[in-house]
Amino acid sequence: MMGKEEIQEQMMGAVRTVRETNPMVGSITNTVTINLVANAQLAVGGSAAMVYLPDEGEVLAKTAGAMYINVGTLLPVYEQTLPHVAKVLHEIGRPWVLDPVAVGIGALRSKLLEQLKEYKPSIIRGNASEIIALAGLWGLAGGSSESNVRGVDSMDSVTSAKDAAVALAGWTGGAVAVSGKADFVTDGHTAALSEGGSYFMKRITGSGCSLGGVNAVYAAAASPFIAALTATAVYNLAGSRAESKSDGPGSFQTAFLDELYKAGGEDIAGNPFKIEEV
Amino acid sequence: MMGKEEIQEQMMGAVRTVRETNPMVGSITNTVTINLVANAQLAVGGSAAMVYLPDEGEVLAKTAGAMYINVGTLLPVYEQTLPHVAKVLHEIGRPWVLDPVAVGIGALRSKLLEQLKEYKPSIIRGNASEIIALAGLWGLAGGSSESNVRGVDSMDSVTSAKDAAVALAGWTGGAVAVSGKADFVTDGHTAALSEGGSYFMKRITGSGCSLGGVNAVYAAAASPFIAALTATAVYNLAGSRAESKSDGPGSFQTAFLDELYKAGGEDIAGNPFKIEEV
Amino acid sequence: MMGKEEIQEQMMGAVRTVRETNPMVGSITNTVTINLVANAQLAVGGSAAMVYLPDEGEVLAKTAGAMYINVGTLLPVYEQTLPHVAKVLHEIGRPWVLDPVAVGIGALRSKLLEQLKEYKPSIIRGNASEIIALAGLWGLAGGSSESNVRGVDSMDSVTSAKDAAVALAGWTGGAVAVSGKADFVTDGHTAALSEGGSYFMKRITGSGCSLGGVNAVYAAAASPFIAALTATAVYNLAGSRAESKSDGPGSFQTAFLDELYKAGGEDIAGNPFKIEEV
Repeated sequence: MMGKEEIQEQMMGAVRTVRETNPMVGSITNTVTINLVANAQLAVGGSAAMVYLPDEGEVLAKTAGAMYINVGTLLPVYEQTLPHVAKVLHEIGRPWVLDPVAVGIGALRSKLLEQLKEYKPSIIRGNASEIIALAGLWGLAGGSSESNVRGVDSMDSVTSAKDAAVALAGWTGGAVAVSGKADFVTDGHTAALSEGGSYFMKRITGSGCSLGGVNAVYAAAASPFIAALTATAVYNLAGSRAESKSDGPGSFQTAFLDELYKAGGEDIAGNPFKIEEV
Repeated sequence: MMGKEEIQEQMMGAVRTVRETNPMVGSITNTVTINLVANAQLAVGGSAAMVYLPDEGEVLAKTAGAMYINVGTLLPVYEQTLPHVAKVLHEIGRPWVLDPVAVGIGALRSKLLEQLKEYKPSIIRGNASEIIALAGLWGLAGGSSESNVRGVDSMDSVTSAKDAAVALAGWTGGAVAVSGKADFVTDGHTAALSEGGSYFMKRITGSGCSLGGVNAVYAAAASPFIAALTATAVYNLAGSRAESKSDGPGSFQTAFLDELYKAGGEDIAGNPFKIEEV
Repeated sequence: MMGKEEIQEQMMGAVRTVRETNPMVGSITNTVTINLVANAQLAVGGSAAMVYLPDEGEVLAKTAGAMYINVGTLLPVYEQTLPHVAKVLHEIGRPWVLDPVAVGIGALRSKLLEQLKEYKPSIIRGNASEIIALAGLWGLAGGSSESNVRGVDSMDSVTSAKDAAVALAGWTGGAVAVSGKADFVTDGHTAALSEGGSYFMKRITGSGCSLGGVNAVYAAAASPFIAALTATAVYNLAGSRAESKSDGPGSFQTAFLDELYKAGGEDIAGNPFKIEEV
């Protein structure tokens, strides 16, 4: 298991590499928060490109530093696009992030998420209920076939998703990040509990989706575990800084993008987290 | 007819119930303002979920507290989704809000809006031209087959849409809200004229759509008339408060979300309105 | 060649006409920045309407003052919509703006952009790599079949796109605007180099797309060259004004919309630019 200082060194390295190389990240994501995803990716130093069509997704998979796939608002074309793009990503070993939003709602969503199992996303990010339901759908430990997903909200605690997260990371060989009051990030061996954030992150739409998009930016520059922890840390840091400057969810969102942009590597690595073996 | 004080009591009740129960509201809405719809729904205390596919819409119809259907930017899949979801909503008696944006533009829009007639939306929200054109399309009094809809803008005054609004409410048994300089809300028996708002609400996109989405949040907690009047009142209150803090449409939108979030039940119920029998 | 003062007079005329007539502009554009496109169009005094379906696009083409077509995030229906709407625009002589985002990515994008050649957009707006690649796709001078487009970013300098821009304007008989550090606008005879803007315009998503949308607003009120130069100038002016009030990309976007709204005709026409014969 890496020590905390080594992890922090690698987090600072991820931040530095992203700022220096401006990695292009492709996204296939929902129409509700697509703008915030792109703006958050730009704010931390990445470049953003979004598509819907299968062959365009393939081009991005092959040219981007990493990809972000979010199933929030499925359109019919996703039936062709998602398995095709995920297959390409897996075959060429490109890092990619899966956000299994609202897993359990509707037939296509379940079918697609089942298909994605074999393409092993480098990072899976979701709330506790989504992580538990995805592990259930994939027949892994800690999962449940009884979904507690309520729209985009979690009805479960982060702690209750720990086993599912570890099992998912074990299956993919990558990392899993569970968003909640404190965020749980694991590669199946080491786990980190990251603190901070803001009450307002649940009062704006897209704090989770855009965190997924930022995971992909760092995944272009670091291992899945370091990428997921760095993204989680910058969100917790920027969230608490933005809250202190906010008068409500509108001014919070504005300040949050500013703080994502201003956050430096040392501050991000210094944002409070604990590590443990799992 | 209810007296003004009784109406105000019920408005405060709607605000309180929403804040306490955080009702999940499903939306099928346009891609232009979908983010603002969600953020406005969250700001007033609801939870938001957006979908496009028929079976996902059915799941939301059955699990959400209310639904919002806005035909702003139709995609081909809406031909399957909208009539299916509206039928389910009607059959199970779930409250739902219809926003007949740009009624009269294109063949699919007219066909869908004709189909929705029999599923009787609990609340219809639109500008004067849209309300008149919808009543015309549905063959009701006060309607006109000559649409004055110009893109998303109204060419008619709120007063000129009064008969159409009353006729639509008579048909659905629900409420109709006509947005304008002063907003007209009626259940076909009582009408309220709500004042306030801001000049900037016409200089940002989505003030109407997001008001429709907020109508659906309150419809999960109150009768259609009270829900529509409460949503209209919080918009008028937050709009005038935000204008005083704004330097243009950008800062207005930010301040507006803050004020939606901060508005309390007493202030909302105390926002100026007049009632009359119709 | 017009003199600088005559150009400035016409720019002030375009600003005045837009503020007085509030022209409705139709857009078919990507889902990432569609909200900012609409808000920017409203901020400068236009009215915005967005659609996806072929017959709805036709209605807008026939009733709007101008149209904006941006191929950023293609959906399957674009295969029907774009050639149909562009054909109508060309036949009735309605001004329209083409934004060839990410030209070269995917088969449908190339096919559609090839089809659009014969419908001669009044204004083509893009970054240097997109302008060079479009000229290449259309077999014009200054173009290259080797695309340097990287997602939505330009890898080429504005200067290197000068020949392609002039050739495209020669083909369409309209204007071409190349966005970059200084922006190059030409009608094939006269060229203007417009200065200003902000570093933050590359750190938010949609500064290019929304500029394209604002090009269409002014195209409803002025010649393609004057419209493109006026739109470019108000962007450069508002960008530099907003930067001085910003703490990061979030507050920049808010301030930018405010400054677009507040910019007056004299200030816009007075924003620094040089003209030359090409």
